[in-house]
Amino acid sequence: MALIVQKFGGTSVADADKIHRAARRAIRAKLDGKKVVLVVSAMGKTTDHLIALAREVTPEPPRRELDMLLTTGEQVSIALMAMAIQSVGHEAISLTGGQLGLVTDSRHSQARIQNISKERLFKELDDGRIVIVAGFQGVDETGEITTMGRGASDTTAAALAAVLGAEICEIYTDVDGIYTSDPRVVPEARKLDAISYDEMLEMAGAGAGVMHSRAIEFAKKYNVPIHVRSSLTDQPGTMIMEKTPGMEDVAVRGASLKVDLATIVMTRVPNEPGIAAEIFAEVGKHHIVVDDIIQNFYDDRKLANVGFSTNQDQAREGVEVCRRMAEARGFGPVELDENVSKVSVVGVGMRSHAAVAARMFEALRDAKVNIDTISTSEIVISCIVPQEHGPRALQAVHKAFELDKAHPST
Amino acid sequence: MALIVQKFGGTSVADADKIHRAARRAIRAKLDGKKVVLVVSAMGKTTDHLIALAREVTPEPPRRELDMLLTTGEQVSIALMAMAIQSVGHEAISLTGGQLGLVTDSRHSQARIQNISKERLFKELDDGRIVIVAGFQGVDETGEITTMGRGASDTTAAALAAVLGAEICEIYTDVDGIYTSDPRVVPEARKLDAISYDEMLEMAGAGAGVMHSRAIEFAKKYNVPIHVRSSLTDQPGTMIMEKTPGMEDVAVRGASLKVDLATIVMTRVPNEPGIAAEIFAEVGKHHIVVDDIIQNFYDDRKLANVGFSTNQDQAREGVEVCRRMAEARGFGPVELDENVSKVSVVGVGMRSHAAVAARMFEALRDAKVNIDTISTSEIVISCIVPQEHGPRALQAVHKAFELDKAHPST
Repeated sequence: MALIVQKFGGTSVADADKIHRAARRAIRAKLDGKKVVLVVSAMGKTTDHLIALAREVTPEPPRRELDMLLTTGEQVSIALMAMAIQSVGHEAISLTGGQLGLVTDSRHSQARIQNISKERLFKELDDGRIVIVAGFQGVDETGEITTMGRGASDTTAAALAAVLGAEICEIYTDVDGIYTSDPRVVPEARKLDAISYDEMLEMAGAGAGVMHSRAIEFAKKYNVPIHVRSSLTDQPGTMIMEKTPGMEDVAVRGASLKVDLATIVMTRVPNEPGIAAEIFAEVGKHHIVVDDIIQNFYDDRKLANVGFSTNQDQAREGVEVCRRMAEARGFGPVELDENVSKVSVVGVGMRSHAAVAARMFEALRDAKVNIDTISTSEIVISCIVPQEHGPRALQAVHKAFELDKAHPST
Repeated sequence: MALIVQKFGGTSVADADKIHRAARRAIRAKLDGKKVVLVVSAMGKTTDHLIALAREVTPEPPRRELDMLLTTGEQVSIALMAMAIQSVGHEAISLTGGQLGLVTDSRHSQARIQNISKERLFKELDDGRIVIVAGFQGVDETGEITTMGRGASDTTAAALAAVLGAEICEIYTDVDGIYTSDPRVVPEARKLDAISYDEMLEMAGAGAGVMHSRAIEFAKKYNVPIHVRSSLTDQPGTMIMEKTPGMEDVAVRGASLKVDLATIVMTRVPNEPGIAAEIFAEVGKHHIVVDDIIQNFYDDRKLANVGFSTNQDQAREGVEVCRRMAEARGFGPVELDENVSKVSVVGVGMRSHAAVAARMFEALRDAKVNIDTISTSEIVISCIVPQEHGPRALQAVHKAFELDKAHPST
């Protein structure tokens, strides 16, 4: 019997009516002859409210206790969802991460899944129940409650779909799919019918906030198709899946803007083996998030500039860490730019289209956007630009690659 | 090292300030050289809000899922309390019922404690931590989450105090102790310095809502003194403990009023062995709460009236159950009085004071209160009276026994 995993985000379970609507979707899948596993997030703004409550008690809540606090949000949702399904005469049972047997490592607030027990899940499914699982949470081997980071309910859903061999993992949300770009910035942005795992990973990393990266990694690893779609309509959304032959016709699938970044550059760093490792070990020790890293040599190749982008709210701390290192080691001054954004284009097709980078830089030049730094990977080209140029840069790039026009294959 | 259990009710942890205040009390006990276990309830009106949320989803939430839902309230409180204590530099850890190893039977919403594991608790205490336990909740042997009924955080506290051999169990609440009567009805009501377990049990059963009866049963069984006191002041409250010689001087310790009752009387029931058992088995099967039972014979002793008091909101259902029985068995009509209250006097001393009952009935007569039915036990006399006479009846009885006057022993 086919098995389906459906995940409902916070906006899709924000009140009793929405919970009933999500319940009806699950029941419909059940009546279609499927085994159904639901993963739900905390209702609406619950997680934000709980964090605010914790901050009223202490500015820096200890992570173990924050996990203890935040997991209640999903527990409320699963109980209400089970009630909703049972209230219309169908069997359902809610399970916490611990009851399900979703075991993570012990890193509170950023735990990673280590094992998912199938026993309880299959027992309940075989008994004809819709199983409702609390997203975002697990337990470590000693029974301590853990969470896997904001947005990790997607990861719970994808991991369950992978482990259970689901035919599909449906992600219900308040948007109707993945767009070529952020429609709030680029009004011409177009919904994609399909996108590859790799493209989606890069889009997520480049600032497209629709899905949690680790969820896509799970889906890619186990080749589970993900369907991102609206909880309000029955229209198809966007399939995230292995690339199909048709998809290759497009050089660039989408364009993203990541805002609120800062860049920190350490100048005149000796170009010695291991120096970058040392710098980023120190930065990591202070839990500074590192977005992209860019290193350039001076012309004599004996010195280098080592730079990285980070979140604006960590910029000051990051600079302090780097300055201490620079002073201790006799590097040059540390430069900070607190107001930058990153515009990126993503597409598996650009591997075979050498002209993509040139087209992007021309588009930015024509839009009079200064490019601070450039970094590329096989399927992404990213430019750091001044924050105030960000939206204009995104619009220009989106237009240059004709992302607003439907391609036959997508 | 002496061990103390402190329990903070919902009003005592209703916001961040109150949580910090409770935390300071626990820390003070720790600094006094004690091992400290805290039991906390859900914040303020959280449980009511969660129940309302469930009712928005379905009018009759299934009990398993309601337990899943409601236990989140205490989980929020324990996390915040641990944060509060840690924020001022003391070690603390929160534990859910499951993590603690508080095992109950599987009766959702009214589970009973079967076992409390001491291992985790003593490990944390020995490591120098203040341990914060979620009240009201446990898990059954299969790991299903259970609750023990409204107000059961008291029971969690008393049971922990009993199992751990605590020197005292402190119950912090928004009143400053146990009163001779409800001060909202009897302004002259006086705070008691001490009351015996048995008296407190009867007071609770007779409508004095300060403490959960099962908590008192635990304390009595293991002889743990309970100190009911205000979370706002350092004034001593009321000790609940084994009766002391001094206590015996008082015939009546307090007077209670239980409102919102209804009485249902089945008339012309054959006076046969087992008939009462049969009736109350049927009533129990429909989960009708039975308060007091009063049976009177007709003068030929062949027929009886079998009556009981119940909650007003169950009266209609109770009458239906009884009428079906009466019709099927050929009893007489079933009488319902939907608006009655019960006034009771309680005191271990009345065992040796035969005149107590007479004094109570005289007081009610002088206050022109009609007595519907009377029931007595060794340390209680209760009268069912019309609801509108309830407050007057309570005031009259309180005065007749001079409960407003301090006795040398209390």
